[in-house]
Amino acid sequence: MRSGLPKVLHPVAGRPMVAWAVKAARDLGARRVVVVTGHGADAVEAALQAPGVAFARQEKQRGTGDAFLSGAAALEGGEEGDADILVLYGDTPMLRVETLRALLADHRERASAMTVLTGELPDATGYGRILRGAGGDVEGIVEQKDASDEQRRIGEFNSGVYVFDAQAPRLAQQIGNDNASGEYYLTDLLGLYRAAGAPVRAFKLADAGEVEGANDRVGLAALETAMGRRIVERHMRAGVTVQRPDTVVIEDTVELGQDVTLEPGVILRGQTRVAPGVTVGAYSVLTNTVLAEGVTVKAHSVLEGAQVGRGSDVGPFARLRPGTVLGEGVHIGNFVETKNAVLAQGVKAGHLAYLGDVEIGDETNVGAGTIVANFDGVNKHRTRVGAGVFIGSNSTLIAPRVVGDAAFIAAGSAVHADVPEGAMAVARGKQRTLEGWSRRYWGGLREGVERKLPWLAGWLRREQ
Amino acid sequence: MRSGLPKVLHPVAGRPMVAWAVKAARDLGARRVVVVTGHGADAVEAALQAPGVAFARQEKQRGTGDAFLSGAAALEGGEEGDADILVLYGDTPMLRVETLRALLADHRERASAMTVLTGELPDATGYGRILRGAGGDVEGIVEQKDASDEQRRIGEFNSGVYVFDAQAPRLAQQIGNDNASGEYYLTDLLGLYRAAGAPVRAFKLADAGEVEGANDRVGLAALETAMGRRIVERHMRAGVTVQRPDTVVIEDTVELGQDVTLEPGVILRGQTRVAPGVTVGAYSVLTNTVLAEGVTVKAHSVLEGAQVGRGSDVGPFARLRPGTVLGEGVHIGNFVETKNAVLAQGVKAGHLAYLGDVEIGDETNVGAGTIVANFDGVNKHRTRVGAGVFIGSNSTLIAPRVVGDAAFIAAGSAVHADVPEGAMAVARGKQRTLEGWSRRYWGGLREGVERKLPWLAGWLRREQ
Amino acid sequence: MRSGLPKVLHPVAGRPMVAWAVKAARDLGARRVVVVTGHGADAVEAALQAPGVAFARQEKQRGTGDAFLSGAAALEGGEEGDADILVLYGDTPMLRVETLRALLADHRERASAMTVLTGELPDATGYGRILRGAGGDVEGIVEQKDASDEQRRIGEFNSGVYVFDAQAPRLAQQIGNDNASGEYYLTDLLGLYRAAGAPVRAFKLADAGEVEGANDRVGLAALETAMGRRIVERHMRAGVTVQRPDTVVIEDTVELGQDVTLEPGVILRGQTRVAPGVTVGAYSVLTNTVLAEGVTVKAHSVLEGAQVGRGSDVGPFARLRPGTVLGEGVHIGNFVETKNAVLAQGVKAGHLAYLGDVEIGDETNVGAGTIVANFDGVNKHRTRVGAGVFIGSNSTLIAPRVVGDAAFIAAGSAVHADVPEGAMAVARGKQRTLEGWSRRYWGGLREGVERKLPWLAGWLRREQ
Repeated sequence: MRSGLPKVLHPVAGRPMVAWAVKAARDLGARRVVVVTGHGADAVEAALQAPGVAFARQEKQRGTGDAFLSGAAALEGGEEGDADILVLYGDTPMLRVETLRALLADHRERASAMTVLTGELPDATGYGRILRGAGGDVEGIVEQKDASDEQRRIGEFNSGVYVFDAQAPRLAQQIGNDNASGEYYLTDLLGLYRAAGAPVRAFKLADAGEVEGANDRVGLAALETAMGRRIVERHMRAGVTVQRPDTVVIEDTVELGQDVTLEPGVILRGQTRVAPGVTVGAYSVLTNTVLAEGVTVKAHSVLEGAQVGRGSDVGPFARLRPGTVLGEGVHIGNFVETKNAVLAQGVKAGHLAYLGDVEIGDETNVGAGTIVANFDGVNKHRTRVGAGVFIGSNSTLIAPRVVGDAAFIAAGSAVHADVPEGAMAVARGKQRTLEGWSRRYWGGLREGVERKLPWLAGWLRREQ
Repeated sequence: MRSGLPKVLHPVAGRPMVAWAVKAARDLGARRVVVVTGHGADAVEAALQAPGVAFARQEKQRGTGDAFLSGAAALEGGEEGDADILVLYGDTPMLRVETLRALLADHRERASAMTVLTGELPDATGYGRILRGAGGDVEGIVEQKDASDEQRRIGEFNSGVYVFDAQAPRLAQQIGNDNASGEYYLTDLLGLYRAAGAPVRAFKLADAGEVEGANDRVGLAALETAMGRRIVERHMRAGVTVQRPDTVVIEDTVELGQDVTLEPGVILRGQTRVAPGVTVGAYSVLTNTVLAEGVTVKAHSVLEGAQVGRGSDVGPFARLRPGTVLGEGVHIGNFVETKNAVLAQGVKAGHLAYLGDVEIGDETNVGAGTIVANFDGVNKHRTRVGAGVFIGSNSTLIAPRVVGDAAFIAAGSAVHADVPEGAMAVARGKQRTLEGWSRRYWGGLREGVERKLPWLAGWLRREQ
Repeated sequence: MRSGLPKVLHPVAGRPMVAWAVKAARDLGARRVVVVTGHGADAVEAALQAPGVAFARQEKQRGTGDAFLSGAAALEGGEEGDADILVLYGDTPMLRVETLRALLADHRERASAMTVLTGELPDATGYGRILRGAGGDVEGIVEQKDASDEQRRIGEFNSGVYVFDAQAPRLAQQIGNDNASGEYYLTDLLGLYRAAGAPVRAFKLADAGEVEGANDRVGLAALETAMGRRIVERHMRAGVTVQRPDTVVIEDTVELGQDVTLEPGVILRGQTRVAPGVTVGAYSVLTNTVLAEGVTVKAHSVLEGAQVGRGSDVGPFARLRPGTVLGEGVHIGNFVETKNAVLAQGVKAGHLAYLGDVEIGDETNVGAGTIVANFDGVNKHRTRVGAGVFIGSNSTLIAPRVVGDAAFIAAGSAVHADVPEGAMAVARGKQRTLEGWSRRYWGGLREGVERKLPWLAGWLRREQ
């Protein structure tokens, strides 16, 4: 991958590839989940740390058989002595839980000792091929380099995913490394099972693409795109309109109601939840954000960790940051940022404002250019604004500040004292007007005016 | 569709699917247009309300034959007794007017009584197949379930689109419902025409994709993408450069001049018109906006209902709202919003401004952070600014206000009185400077300064 | 192309098509590069002006043979009399330098007199077909219209790209125009070479798509997309993560480090360089910008001509303009614009600010809504702000201004005098509070309040 990051930690659809395997195991109800690590073990373990997930380090990279034994050691001593063992890989995120559930069901129903998950390709060059016996059982797996010409024409290949019964750890100790590379191959378990007279079966994937991995970033991008398409299609089939599916990104964790519309380029991440009927405008990016019914998010909005109440509208060019809670019917317009901001019903902040560490009551109007100055250079302070307040444009509320209900702040004020209920605060200079001043001012810049401002130059000439 | 919206009202390229059929009928010069409604009739009728469009409700869903009779009833009493009747569907928006024109021409030239629009597919499973006689006339249409193996190999299928001569309404009354589903099938007209000795012909589509419909949002997205590509290609062939066609959205109603360039992700909607040679920057969204020659719209701009004069430049991150009229050579920069704003030639508003309900004269310079405070809490008021005015940064003009030509407003002023021509207005506090104040201030926050601001902590130490 | 721009000047991946040919020639180490111009010669010459590039005008469009002679004339008198001549075209930008290098090597190794670059297609209709002799040498090229049925089944076609030895200019003078169109064909050189007993060989492209041209904007978009994909894949294979490759645009001149991540819709242009490990957020557009290690650019940022220091974070909705130099650990937040701005280590400008023509020292905090007012109506002036300064929100610094280290500017100040080190400047009105004022104000707007602001209407009633 030409990367400082272990391959299995490269994310697909917002989740490290290996985490897809862990999630699949948990979704299947695995009693225990053991992750065998090797290269980059510390980073992998840190990324997957969770209750119920154990780790086993394969100290030397001595092959898949050795990796299996490392993992099996971590299973010892549990009460699951008779449980089946499912082997998954950290770099095949497309493998569906539904597929694995069917694999396990097949394994159990047919009382198989070992089941190989296989796929079929028109040309399976490079893969180990499946050799089936007369009854359909698997008699062997032959690697590409060892295959005869006839065997190379076999399209059924070994995905490397297996289900074993509980004897596998014991049998696996008999795997040898008497081969060209001196490695221990997990595939050898097949022969050991068969030698023990135990039935080995294959379960064939409907879509061989599910076991696709990635060996470089081109492959990674192909997985990302395929997984993205899978998630988007799931939502479309459930009743979500997506105008340009290939431009939209929805992480697996997102929930969308019926008749949601996603315009082109929308990105939805994390624990985002969108209520039925909501439209999210083009190029908006939502992370861990909850939108209630009747909400409109206009184009080019960036929302993170925000809750948006029923009937509110946001954007375009709005930025809602964590801790933003908007009540019903709130209006947030362009070039407005909120952070740790609780805005009650009907608050309007339409233009060019920064609302940080603030609570604002019902129906308060936040004028264009309003800044809540929450920072004293070292600490952040909180401001409380009542209901029905009118904050004039270009005002500054210097935190910590309390502004009472129905107060009125004159435009351009820097409010450095609290404002009682119903009062008007004005904190700006009184206007002075100097007649004739412009003539002198522009006269001093005459040459530039003549060059750049023909209308003004004409006025200056007329004024003389 | 898993939707609260009737299927035919789902939009494709900005127009409800059924409206494409109505538009096609009108573009063909239909003397009368009748829309037969059933499910969601109220919503469909509301969406299509227009002069010359009549509606007929099919009270019970009793099949296509019954739907036809419902529609035919609405045609009665007109003066078009001898006119041909074209049957279209509300969910096939890709059907081209050119195709329908050719279909009608074929129908007339060959003096056909009924013409079936057909398509050809390698595998037409699911469709009714066309049975042709020796001379090429259509002898029958056999549904999938009734077809013999041989008939199922026929690739020519019935699109469901027909042209009938004026006898159709009369003949259609003979359609029966003596079949498995108890429905009245419009296809039965074929047999009735043939029984009357009238010639039934087929007109085959060059591209079977034109009669593609959508049964879920995946199909809807496929139509949206295909229609989008069709419209974009039309403009490209006429001389528009589109750098990434699959990321660009152009609604059908948009007009673009030669040598227009659309960067990636541009979205153009409604009655937008762009003059020759103009470049629209990446991710900009334009709705009902007119751009004159020589205009540049930079990336990430959102324009709606705006007119932009010759040689003006807008963006990035500009928001022009309805009622914005920019003269020649106007400059609108980043984080600037305009609304009901008429800006004359050469006005510059480069940074972080809100210009609402305002007229501004030639060459006026609007400083960064300027706000026109147009709202008194209940009503909006209008402001008039003359030509050659200099509005200093972070000023607020409290509407309603009149600022005369060549006036000068000092930076940071909250202008609450009118400013005469050539005058200077200053409405801010005079600067006071308190020497040594910082030492005391930061001293009080010392612990935080030591932790977070090492340079300032060092200065404090030196200052003691 | 339906364009006012000559076809070869239409850009692909940020470079005019013909400039790709010139670049290829120079990358190959051509001793001389001659561009033959015809239609739009002035524009083409202006676009390609560079040391070492000569131009030859083909005054009349008399065919490729005539064009070659025009170019050959410009080669005369040089010291390269014995050098090979490579003929390229202005509209095939996909042709790789590696391919041309292999072509030239083949020409030299086999001591060929003329080598034709050929491609192979399943159906080469429209192209001139290659007639090979028994030994594989090229015996002729037959044009589509002159080809027999058997010849038309030949899949190997003439790309029009040739290598000639030094006799070509002399031989080319024998090309006649005794043919249907009266033009001089460069293909005729093949016969002339063979008549002189000189060996003519073919070198076949591995990928015929490399000689694809464009005849309209649909073709141009196809080239743009293919070239875009080629460049993106080159970076992916070198270790760059690109989440949606089809939405990302990277010009050929851009350099990206390992483990760079590009989110969807990123556009990188010009001399942009991104250090290893950096993430560029969705829909950001970077031109001629340098990002150091540890930098984060968040979504929806537009950077041009900027340098961003180690560990800095920028965006979302940031606009860095030319002359912006950010030190280490600088924070630029949303709706902030910088231009000719040098910000030292640890400067923070988080919200809604315009910093133009300014230098700012270490750790200075720029409050939300700060404007550096750098323009007097005609000229721009520079401002210097020291280290450890606290600029309160909604302040205006009226340039030219000097603010000393550790100074403190009170929120809402319009600073019109310099501020000494350690001093506090306040330039705003003192706050006055008018108790009970709101009741009178809203009372005057009572009807509107009753209609639009139910909470406030209730308060008014209670207050009476």
